[in-house]
Formats: sequence, C-alpha cells, structure tokens
Amino acid sequence: MKGAVLYGARDVRFEDRDTPKVVEPTDAVIRTSATCICGSDLWPYRGISKVDAPTPFGHEYCGVVEEVGRAVTRVTPGQFVIGSFFASDNTCPHCQAGYQTSCQHRELVGGAQAPRLRVPLADGTLVATSEVPPAELIPSLLALSDVMGTGWFAADAANVKPGKTVLVVGDGAVGLLAVLSAREMGATRIIAMSRHPARQKLAREFGASDIVSGRGEEGVARIKELTGGIGADSVLECVGTSEAMTQAVRSTRPGGYIGYVGVPHGVTLDAQDLFFRHVRLHGGPAPMRRYLPKLIELVWSRKIDPGKVFDLTLPLDQVAEGYRAMDERRAIETLLRP
Amino acid sequence: MKGAVLYGARDVRFEDRDTPKVVEPTDAVIRTSATCICGSDLWPYRGISKVDAPTPFGHEYCGVVEEVGRAVTRVTPGQFVIGSFFASDNTCPHCQAGYQTSCQHRELVGGAQAPRLRVPLADGTLVATSEVPPAELIPSLLALSDVMGTGWFAADAANVKPGKTVLVVGDGAVGLLAVLSAREMGATRIIAMSRHPARQKLAREFGASDIVSGRGEEGVARIKELTGGIGADSVLECVGTSEAMTQAVRSTRPGGYIGYVGVPHGVTLDAQDLFFRHVRLHGGPAPMRRYLPKLIELVWSRKIDPGKVFDLTLPLDQVAEGYRAMDERRAIETLLRP
Repeated sequence: MKGAVLYGARDVRFEDRDTPKVVEPTDAVIRTSATCICGSDLWPYRGISKVDAPTPFGHEYCGVVEEVGRAVTRVTPGQFVIGSFFASDNTCPHCQAGYQTSCQHRELVGGAQAPRLRVPLADGTLVATSEVPPAELIPSLLALSDVMGTGWFAADAANVKPGKTVLVVGDGAVGLLAVLSAREMGATRIIAMSRHPARQKLAREFGASDIVSGRGEEGVARIKELTGGIGADSVLECVGTSEAMTQAVRSTRPGGYIGYVGVPHGVTLDAQDLFFRHVRLHGGPAPMRRYLPKLIELVWSRKIDPGKVFDLTLPLDQVAEGYRAMDERRAIETLLRP
Repeated sequence: MKGAVLYGARDVRFEDRDTPKVVEPTDAVIRTSATCICGSDLWPYRGISKVDAPTPFGHEYCGVVEEVGRAVTRVTPGQFVIGSFFASDNTCPHCQAGYQTSCQHRELVGGAQAPRLRVPLADGTLVATSEVPPAELIPSLLALSDVMGTGWFAADAANVKPGKTVLVVGDGAVGLLAVLSAREMGATRIIAMSRHPARQKLAREFGASDIVSGRGEEGVARIKELTGGIGADSVLECVGTSEAMTQAVRSTRPGGYIGYVGVPHGVTLDAQDLFFRHVRLHGGPAPMRRYLPKLIELVWSRKIDPGKVFDLTLPLDQVAEGYRAMDERRAIETLLRP
C-alpha cells in the first residue's frame, strides 16, 4: 500500500508502507473512503513542529470497516464509520464526562492519508452511520472526523447560545466551521475575522453576519465598535498563535467565554490580565466522539454541509500538491481520494 | 480623623487624614462599624506590589450611612450598609451581566481602615440591611465586603454543584470561606490544602472533608489518590502565586473548572498545557455586588458565619500590629474596630 509520509519541512512523500492490520483485539482496520489534510498538519509541514523520523501522516478519516479484532463488538465489517484522531475507550471517567480526547487509554490515530488505516479501541472510537452513505455526503461526513467537530467544540466551549454575539478568530476550515456551528447553536450575530475573499464568502454562506478584516489594535477596535463597546459574548479562537489568542482575549466581554481549539504554539497567557478581564477560557483537542452522533444526524438530514470547506479535491497520490496548496493558502482544505 | 496609611514595605502608620466628605453627588460617606486587613493588603505591605506615595489603606467595610450626595436615592442616612472595594453603578452592561467589578464606571474604594469612608456611586455599590444589625453579626457582615464574596465567587466560577468534588488551594481567609461556599453550594467532598493546624481546624468547621498538607508533586499525587486518579471537578485557587496556580491546574480533571480569585502575581500560563489538560479557567476580582443580597440573607438567618475567620480583633489604632500578625501568619484575618 502507498501512503503519505512526512520526512521533514515541506517534504511529504507518497510511498510504500506496510498495509495496516489488526494488532490488538480491540482494533479495526478500515478502507478509507476519503481523507484530507488538516490545518494542524501544516505545523510540522512548515517545520514549526519537528518530526524526528519519517512519519506516516494524516489523522482525518471515514470509510468502510474491513476487519475487526476479536474483542470488537459494536463495529462490524461492511459498516461505514467515522472516528477521531484520538482513539478512546469511551468508558473511562474522562470519556463519560465527554472528554474522550483525554481518555485514560487514548491513542493517537496516525497515517490516515492512505487507503487503509488501523484504528485502535474501535468500539469506543468509531461511530457507524445507519447505512453506507451516498457519495455526495462523503465530504461532509469526513469533515466530522476533525474540522467540523473542532469548530463545534469551539462554539460549545465558548457557550454559544441563541441570541448571543459570537466572534470567530481564524478563517481556516475550523474557523469557518466554527461560524457554521455558532449559526446552528442559534447565535444572532456572528462576526468572522478574515481578509481572504473566498473565505469571507464561505463565512457568509455559513452564517457570518459581519466580516472584520482588521487585525491587532484595529481589529479589537472594530469588534468593540460592532458590540457597542462591550465585547463579544463568545469568542472562538481557531488558530493557535499568540496574535490570535491576544485578539480573542481583548475582544471578549467581562464574563464572556473564549473557546480555543487551535493547538497553541508558543502561547503564554498573563494570568493577571485574564483576571482583570474576567474572561472564561476553555479549549483543547475537540472531543469529536461526544458530538459525532449529533453531527452525523445533521449531515445526514442535509441540515449542515461542512464538506464545503474542501475546495480542492485530489487523488491521494497527489498529496504533496495538496500540502503545497494549503501552505500557500490556495486551498482552504484539501480532500484526498484514495 | 486618624486612619491607616501605608508608606512602604512593612511601614503602616495610624495618622491624621482629612475626614472624607461627599465630593460627587453620587457619593455617600459612612461611619465604619468595622473594617479589616485583607490578605491582598499583604502584597504591598510585603513590598511585592509597590506604593508610589503614602496611601490611605484598606478596602473592606460596613457601617452606617452618615451623609449622601444629592443624586443618591436608594441609600439613606442611618442605614447599615455593606459594599465592595470597587464602586460600581450597577446599571452598565457589565454590571447587568453580573460583573460589577468590571463596571464601565468603576472606582476603587480606598482608605477603609479609618472611622469614616467615602463611597462613590453609592446607589450602585452599597446594599443596606433591613435594620441595623446586632453587634454579634458585624464580623460576618464585614466578611461579605470582600473575603466571603471572593470565596463565593471562586466556588461559583468553578461551577461547584451538589455532589461535586472540590479542591481549595489556599488556607487564608478567602480559601477558608471558599470551603464554606462550596459546602453551601452542596459539594459532597471538599478537600482543603493546609499545613497550619488552626486553619485546618477552621476548614473542617466550614465543611472540609479532607485536609491535604503536601504541596507540589506530593500534593498533586495526594489529590489524584483521593479522587480515584481523576482529579477534582472544581478547583478554587485562592492564593495568586505560580505554585498555587500550578497546583490547581494539575489537580483538575479534564473538563473540570478552576475558579481563581487570588490576584495573580507573576503568574504566566502555558496555553498548550491548559489545552491538553482540558481545564476551564475563570476568575477575577469577585463581583461582590452580585452576591451581597443573597449572602446578607444567609448571614442574617445565621446559616453561615464567615466572621469566624477574624481570629484577631484590635482597636483601629493598633492597625500596625494587625498587619504584623497577618504577615507572620499569627492571625488569619484581623478585624479592626474604629
């Protein structure tokens, strides 16, 4: 089997790898129907995070179960399934509390940019659809594996409720889907920060009521202006840089919520500043497993169409071009077809 | 009039000051029935926070209204009142959202360690009791001006609910009253961190079910042991140092809440660490005004007795000894009688 392997900064190769198989009795092996390149894959691709050795890459997936270990009881071959990048048993206290990405037995699922994938803890990790979906739903179902669930968690962590004013920082796939999530949760006003015309357009389609292209001081001033000097009730930080977090902290009303889902890179927070601003902070790797049943239902009933973020589709063997397109911001999110 | 003036590190003087009077039409002047020394007064007393010039000190007060400005309509001379260290109009959007300590027109109330005190924005700031209280209730009512409200906010910000497991970091007056608050809010298990016998005893009286004297690695290990490896649902950080915050962050379960009310001094947070721990963070200067009506009712009906934290009572002219006793941890909290 051939799959994507990251060798180092801007060096992704499509090359022979061992075909995954069931190793533990709790494993499943799936045939991926689609996979994609995540914004977070760009941290190592750009050399900001280091890889020590050539690493099979990708962590978003959906597909058909081919084989399961003998301890797997809830997932059967032939089912179409979606899972998260963290395998979880879904039974430990952290899973039961809805934080499956902090599962006491979690394992990273890696190497999804390939035609076959081994998923540990299959019973806890994978959620099956009622039947094998029609082809046109595949992109939206794939989005539930990470980007849509992550946008949803940002909105949930930031306590988005009907009637609230929401600010979304970041116009990548997660930021755009955070806009969609805020709309689904009933926010009245959704301000999206973006200076990229195609992304602004998609943000509008997903429900943004206002677009702010300014950043830094200018951006904060504009948010304050749009909110009558008060700040946003809920701020969804979907980038992970210091600039984005500062923007979020300074745009939130006292007592307001920041949901942050961009993996923080070199971000330190001054506790005294947060203290006197009275902001609430919650984030982390999104517990997709908690949201999968609901989000599958929303996609299946055509209420949401998160697959729109995939504005470039390539055959899997062109994975390197997919990375380049995202690195250069020519594509929001690249879907790969094995 | 004579009052407490802080000149610099460990230099508090009781000396002549101008008697406060109504300056703005929204002011009130009160005759203080009691005042006290707050744990947070020790930051400047110890020279950790600087004072630029001799500063009238103290910010906790209750007493009888002597005079009001012409715009004051809700508070009248002769009433017994309690207020917060931040005056607030109680009408701006931040006040209406329950964050009166972030009031758009807030003003610091200072110089309360004196027989008379000017309180700005009297209508928004002060809450009157139904009648002048009996002497034995004065300490508990005074505690509502800051330490009790702050402990209550810690518990509220940390989402303490019936049946939850709560950890309180800090055994000062605020930490002890955070224990009392958690009990009032129905927590099943309340773990107090303390290595001081008198404070441990009071923590038990206020409702602590467990006392942990270890700190750092040892403290975290003990909390994990007491919570079945999970961590606490709600952690109340009542100190403001890096050590205390680290203790809090590492003792919280994923998805759990940290309410922090110790003014952070030199505390920086690693956002990536918070991210992967899935903790929720909320704190700030406690919005006492939000809680005053309810807390007055609890004190008036003898359901809570937060005045127990005052284990040293001195006449106001011995204020310097009061500071020394707290600095040396001979007293938890010193009440001063004008």
